[in-house]
Amino acid sequence: MKFLIINGPNLNLLGRREPGIYGERGYDDLCRLIQDYAAARQSTADCIQSNHEGAIIDAIHAAEGVYDAIIINPGAYTHYSYAILDGLKAVSVPAYEVHISQIDRREPFRAVSVTAPACVGQIYGLGFEGYLRAMDHFLEGEG
Amino acid sequence: MKFLIINGPNLNLLGRREPGIYGERGYDDLCRLIQDYAAARQSTADCIQSNHEGAIIDAIHAAEGVYDAIIINPGAYTHYSYAILDGLKAVSVPAYEVHISQIDRREPFRAVSVTAPACVGQIYGLGFEGYLRAMDHFLEGEG
Amino acid sequence: MKFLIINGPNLNLLGRREPGIYGERGYDDLCRLIQDYAAARQSTADCIQSNHEGAIIDAIHAAEGVYDAIIINPGAYTHYSYAILDGLKAVSVPAYEVHISQIDRREPFRAVSVTAPACVGQIYGLGFEGYLRAMDHFLEGEG
Amino acid sequence: MKFLIINGPNLNLLGRREPGIYGERGYDDLCRLIQDYAAARQSTADCIQSNHEGAIIDAIHAAEGVYDAIIINPGAYTHYSYAILDGLKAVSVPAYEVHISQIDRREPFRAVSVTAPACVGQIYGLGFEGYLRAMDHFLEGEG
Amino acid sequence: MKFLIINGPNLNLLGRREPGIYGERGYDDLCRLIQDYAAARQSTADCIQSNHEGAIIDAIHAAEGVYDAIIINPGAYTHYSYAILDGLKAVSVPAYEVHISQIDRREPFRAVSVTAPACVGQIYGLGFEGYLRAMDHFLEGEG
Amino acid sequence: MKFLIINGPNLNLLGRREPGIYGERGYDDLCRLIQDYAAARQSTADCIQSNHEGAIIDAIHAAEGVYDAIIINPGAYTHYSYAILDGLKAVSVPAYEVHISQIDRREPFRAVSVTAPACVGQIYGLGFEGYLRAMDHFLEGEG
Amino acid sequence: MKFLIINGPNLNLLGRREPGIYGERGYDDLCRLIQDYAAARQSTADCIQSNHEGAIIDAIHAAEGVYDAIIINPGAYTHYSYAILDGLKAVSVPAYEVHISQIDRREPFRAVSVTAPACVGQIYGLGFEGYLRAMDHFLEGEG
Amino acid sequence: MKFLIINGPNLNLLGRREPGIYGERGYDDLCRLIQDYAAARQSTADCIQSNHEGAIIDAIHAAEGVYDAIIINPGAYTHYSYAILDGLKAVSVPAYEVHISQIDRREPFRAVSVTAPACVGQIYGLGFEGYLRAMDHFLEGEG
Amino acid sequence: MKFLIINGPNLNLLGRREPGIYGERGYDDLCRLIQDYAAARQSTADCIQSNHEGAIIDAIHAAEGVYDAIIINPGAYTHYSYAILDGLKAVSVPAYEVHISQIDRREPFRAVSVTAPACVGQIYGLGFEGYLRAMDHFLEGEG
Amino acid sequence: MKFLIINGPNLNLLGRREPGIYGERGYDDLCRLIQDYAAARQSTADCIQSNHEGAIIDAIHAAEGVYDAIIINPGAYTHYSYAILDGLKAVSVPAYEVHISQIDRREPFRAVSVTAPACVGQIYGLGFEGYLRAMDHFLEGEG
Amino acid sequence: MKFLIINGPNLNLLGRREPGIYGERGYDDLCRLIQDYAAARQSTADCIQSNHEGAIIDAIHAAEGVYDAIIINPGAYTHYSYAILDGLKAVSVPAYEVHISQIDRREPFRAVSVTAPACVGQIYGLGFEGYLRAMDHFLEGEG
Amino acid sequence: MKFLIINGPNLNLLGRREPGIYGERGYDDLCRLIQDYAAARQSTADCIQSNHEGAIIDAIHAAEGVYDAIIINPGAYTHYSYAILDGLKAVSVPAYEVHISQIDRREPFRAVSVTAPACVGQIYGLGFEGYLRAMDHFLEGEG
Repeated sequence: MKFLIINGPNLNLLGRREPGIYGERGYDDLCRLIQDYAAARQSTADCIQSNHEGAIIDAIHAAEGVYDAIIINPGAYTHYSYAILDGLKAVSVPAYEVHISQIDRREPFRAVSVTAPACVGQIYGLGFEGYLRAMDHFLEGEG
Repeated sequence: MKFLIINGPNLNLLGRREPGIYGERGYDDLCRLIQDYAAARQSTADCIQSNHEGAIIDAIHAAEGVYDAIIINPGAYTHYSYAILDGLKAVSVPAYEVHISQIDRREPFRAVSVTAPACVGQIYGLGFEGYLRAMDHFLEGEG
Repeated sequence: MKFLIINGPNLNLLGRREPGIYGERGYDDLCRLIQDYAAARQSTADCIQSNHEGAIIDAIHAAEGVYDAIIINPGAYTHYSYAILDGLKAVSVPAYEVHISQIDRREPFRAVSVTAPACVGQIYGLGFEGYLRAMDHFLEGEG
Repeated sequence: MKFLIINGPNLNLLGRREPGIYGERGYDDLCRLIQDYAAARQSTADCIQSNHEGAIIDAIHAAEGVYDAIIINPGAYTHYSYAILDGLKAVSVPAYEVHISQIDRREPFRAVSVTAPACVGQIYGLGFEGYLRAMDHFLEGEG
Repeated sequence: MKFLIINGPNLNLLGRREPGIYGERGYDDLCRLIQDYAAARQSTADCIQSNHEGAIIDAIHAAEGVYDAIIINPGAYTHYSYAILDGLKAVSVPAYEVHISQIDRREPFRAVSVTAPACVGQIYGLGFEGYLRAMDHFLEGEG
Repeated sequence: MKFLIINGPNLNLLGRREPGIYGERGYDDLCRLIQDYAAARQSTADCIQSNHEGAIIDAIHAAEGVYDAIIINPGAYTHYSYAILDGLKAVSVPAYEVHISQIDRREPFRAVSVTAPACVGQIYGLGFEGYLRAMDHFLEGEG
Repeated sequence: MKFLIINGPNLNLLGRREPGIYGERGYDDLCRLIQDYAAARQSTADCIQSNHEGAIIDAIHAAEGVYDAIIINPGAYTHYSYAILDGLKAVSVPAYEVHISQIDRREPFRAVSVTAPACVGQIYGLGFEGYLRAMDHFLEGEG
Repeated sequence: MKFLIINGPNLNLLGRREPGIYGERGYDDLCRLIQDYAAARQSTADCIQSNHEGAIIDAIHAAEGVYDAIIINPGAYTHYSYAILDGLKAVSVPAYEVHISQIDRREPFRAVSVTAPACVGQIYGLGFEGYLRAMDHFLEGEG
Repeated sequence: MKFLIINGPNLNLLGRREPGIYGERGYDDLCRLIQDYAAARQSTADCIQSNHEGAIIDAIHAAEGVYDAIIINPGAYTHYSYAILDGLKAVSVPAYEVHISQIDRREPFRAVSVTAPACVGQIYGLGFEGYLRAMDHFLEGEG
Repeated sequence: MKFLIINGPNLNLLGRREPGIYGERGYDDLCRLIQDYAAARQSTADCIQSNHEGAIIDAIHAAEGVYDAIIINPGAYTHYSYAILDGLKAVSVPAYEVHISQIDRREPFRAVSVTAPACVGQIYGLGFEGYLRAMDHFLEGEG
Repeated sequence: MKFLIINGPNLNLLGRREPGIYGERGYDDLCRLIQDYAAARQSTADCIQSNHEGAIIDAIHAAEGVYDAIIINPGAYTHYSYAILDGLKAVSVPAYEVHISQIDRREPFRAVSVTAPACVGQIYGLGFEGYLRAMDHFLEGEG
Repeated sequence: MKFLIINGPNLNLLGRREPGIYGERGYDDLCRLIQDYAAARQSTADCIQSNHEGAIIDAIHAAEGVYDAIIINPGAYTHYSYAILDGLKAVSVPAYEVHISQIDRREPFRAVSVTAPACVGQIYGLGFEGYLRAMDHFLEGEG
């Protein structure tokens, strides 16, 4: 299986950014964890990160026909990017939304995901593990 | 590991209730799936279901010192039961919130979870599989 | 025809509770009126009352395959019980919502019925008679 | 008993207008049904329909001393005509509000009735039958 | 001076309509009071009343070049008729808004006047006298 | 092609009414412009104007089977007439909504069109020309 | 008749303060106009002004048994001083609210008067003349 | 005097539940404190606790004619149980609402009490002592 | 123990002001009741009242180091005086908020206390007795 | 005449993206249609598309002095990009807003255009034709 | 240059009041800092502080013709005193608003300044330094 | 000291863009003013401008360890870019928010800054000078 892992704005600073909320491991650690997990399951995972809303949409579009699934953490764009919502709805690759932190326990603006309606599911609050659980969905389902 | 699986109001009617949204398998199928999954991982899962908000709170209280984790689908109580929120916060057993359907795609009242802030994480939209992924969190983490 | 008449919280105190709003006859009078009305039309009506939200849901579930119609006055649960809404949608027995008082003339919170979307119709403001009119719907229709 | 049946805007197009919601029978069918029902009960029913808010108010005023009861379906005016509300409150003839469709299941603006507080009761969602049930209220009550 | 006095919906029922709020004198008494008051001041006052929003707008349009001032009580249209607002703004005759009752003490919807921004002033709560005070404005000002 | 052009309240005062917003040409100029434009394209356009909400609904109803298209500027009724919304939805003649001014730059209440959902499209801000562009839609489309 | 005229914050700067809105005459001119008007009608008017909310309340209290009527322009306190509202309700002297400008045409916060419910009426938009019209109410009524 | 002390959901976990907010003493300590306080004043106090909304309503109903006063801490039900509100209004035993914590300093949802309008008074923020002060009201008043 | 009792705007008119709500005894009666109650408990209570928000803040500041506790009824300032909130938070003397009436049963604006978060507790609805209960808190606690 | 046609996010996927809403023809078809239409009218139209908000603003800035008119479909940015609003206001080239779908019939967030106040007009709901009608505005006006 | 420095309610308690937010230096330190800073720049600064809204308005009025600039920290009045807003607009002395703390990081009510629209600028979050920066504006500008 | 000056969307058009609001000098003038000011104080200031939200975030990230302070005018992104908020919180370089215009006097959407909570302070309304005052904060503080 081929996964595209999209991380949105400021997730490149994982480990440095508010470690009390996001943990102390860095973005590279996250990518390695994901790729190892995929490799151990006969799959591949390409990880991209961008602070640019448009670049995220471009990447979603380019996934069409190339990847089997998108796992996306849109970062702060989660809360206002109707353009990413539309981008996810415009391609046939299924997408899964992940957040590292428990966004329902933070500022009110983080309690609303405008991108969720374009995803098959969401997983919140499990740290890096959330990406693995999302991969499990596509790799194992109930199997 | 010992799991307590709590399903809230109307989930006893799975399979009969709006199958376009909740699928065609019944509550017993769900319990069997969960218990088999647990058994295959040297764990046990006790499944309870109640339409009574108070009974759900009683069950949460009784989990203290007995179970390692609670996986809860509070059904419609998700959207207004501050009493269940307080109940989950009052015990030390970690809880995980699961919804079978993609609640962000349905009526507006279903987009708000008042119980989520008392849970370590949430998983939405994966059907029965969501319960398994939540168990994975406690069983495997990133392992 | 077999009717299930469900009365929600505090309706057991009819006659004692705010008689200026709910009238001076008691809950037993209401049941007798309904049952006589049914009997005179070759029908039966079972009347249950509960202050427990969960018990009301249980009763709705148990009506499946047993009753031809539910006539429900959810009392104050009308205004916040999404669980009863889901319960009514989960069974195939048609339900009709009745309120004794003209809820649109009282406190603002009583102007919204969250349970109505699961009912085939609503009737408000006619006192005990509302239950009879609701029975007429199932007994006579336009006939 | 003398009934005045007032139907508001667009109800003249019954049968042609969104038949999935309003049914396939026309306004004349509605009037005939009502009048036959009244005749069978030693009563009369005059049916008027207007798309003009002012004409509806004029009719309400003219009912004073002439009719025993008004049964009104204010159509879309239900949701914003405080002038009809005031008109109904200004006469001593009791009024009953009827809607053909289950307005609580449609667009949000249809969930609020500004005219209801001037009526003795409301009946929603029963199609043409709603008018008959409203007549029953005046003809039979609990009798 | 030539006054046009426009009374909106249900004001024809003065004396009969909620006398606790609107007083016991009728619409004819109001017109006579106004006309006598005008006559005593070498002026004339034409009084019209309509329950039709469109007829009120027509009358406002027709006032152009004919009357020196409009005194308008738009009744319930005060609270939602942007069309009357636009009508008043479309003519050069100055208008003054009058309400018989103290609308700030009644239902919340009566606390907002959408027509006021098109008027030179408003006077509320003085009963029939309000019309006289409005005439004083045009007849005497500070003189 | 046969067009019905409906102009709502206060548009009869074009040229006189707030010329800074609506321009200096009158309603007759508008009609002549529209009719010449239609004639030059082998079509006819009947222009009606009314300040009466009910008359506008009557005209919409009467268009059924007579006109090929309705071009409607509901004036201030745009912002609250759910009755016109229902009227447009009740006939099979396609309707197009036009506003002379850029309503998104004016008072907040003008930013919402409750009638738009019943129209195939809207055109705002082009002055009289908007009516011509709407006719183009029916006459030329992409041709 | 003995009038107490209370002017609230910033009205001492009349003539200097935003003359486009409040006119060019000063506070002394206003007092003189009022007092001359009263004198010509065998009455007296004491004028006080304060920028202190508490001082306005003190003055209202002190009016009990001394004045026949209060005419109050609470200035900006109109929009938030529930303490003045309570003060006016606590005395038996009738009060009348006056505003110099047309507050419904200005910033949104000026459209709400929290003090109005304690007054017998309100008059807005007539400049200094508003105080005279308010005096007329107590001096002449409909006489 | 006979008191009924009703504690709502999760208050059985006092001492274990968020001790920073609710203190370290348990529910039994609370009952003993209350009962000793009553006994020292020639009174009795029966303490009940339930996580079930319906059971709380049942208890309120059963208090009629048995107890002189109800002291109720509805826990999280305070913020949404209109059914408990109705229950308290349906009996003639006076009720007093107590909260252990200062609910105005916590989450916004805790700042609103829907049950308060059915109580003679409320006391917040005093810990266990609040129950004693409420008893004082019935025992001593101003004496 | 030394108490400072602060009563806010219009409470000087107790007995005269809306006696249906506030009772028939006057402000002096209240002070005497409080002072007798204190004296009987080897304490003193200084009572001040002001209609001036600033004077209330001044008094709060001056209490530092002089009084052991403040019991404050901020009157209408309760609902908007963030300055009193800040004043109470700026001193180390503990404060207790009291209201004579059941403010949750009155106008909506009275249901919100902006000053409560700076107080150790609140007591509502007990009339003059509320001040005594608040004193009990400081004098007796649970003792 | 020189047109700049700007299409915002996801419009590059026309034909593939939700064809039920946006039609089956692709972005290239749209460009060709527009360019042919321009060419047939002695004009040119440069078409650009970007998913990047910043790139859209850059393009608007670069249009100054180069193009006679901008026709812009900001896609989802319509609903939140105040930066595009400011960009359009910062240049002197007139802009026209076009949407392919009837945005007033879709999700609520699509009913608000924050970019419209910077445009001379808007046209919604006509599919690809909307761009042609917008060009007509600049090419023909009322001519 | 002559500065008037106005500090609003509770700022007299600087150093004692919530030092975590407002710092540990006192009001006298603030005045000395400001006056030294002014003196070093051939200017004078008069510092006044009041807890009385009315006194602040009086001081603003008295500044006319006496001071070159007002630097005002309205304390909690910032968030509701429309009377101070009007006061600042009523004089020709330019005013600058300063807050010691970062009010956008605190309670929601502190995020809105109703007085800001009457000021030439605002400076937040710099502690005592904010007053100096505001003086710089008048003393140096861009020089 | 090393400053990074970040100007957001449309600020490259200073001098050309709405000069009544933003002044007549251009972006280059602003940079020169800032750089001269820095140079005169033994500091350097690098000025960057971008219309791209992502590029602004990239620049904030790149400032870590390179600059001593960020002075940012996020332009319209101020009002919705939670991604820039997160970006500023993710680096340890202190940031200061500047706006050229008095945003509290303009459209309502400009009154809210979502980026402010990540800044040490804000300065509004001083034109180009605001950047200098912000530099003063880092260069001089209270010195």
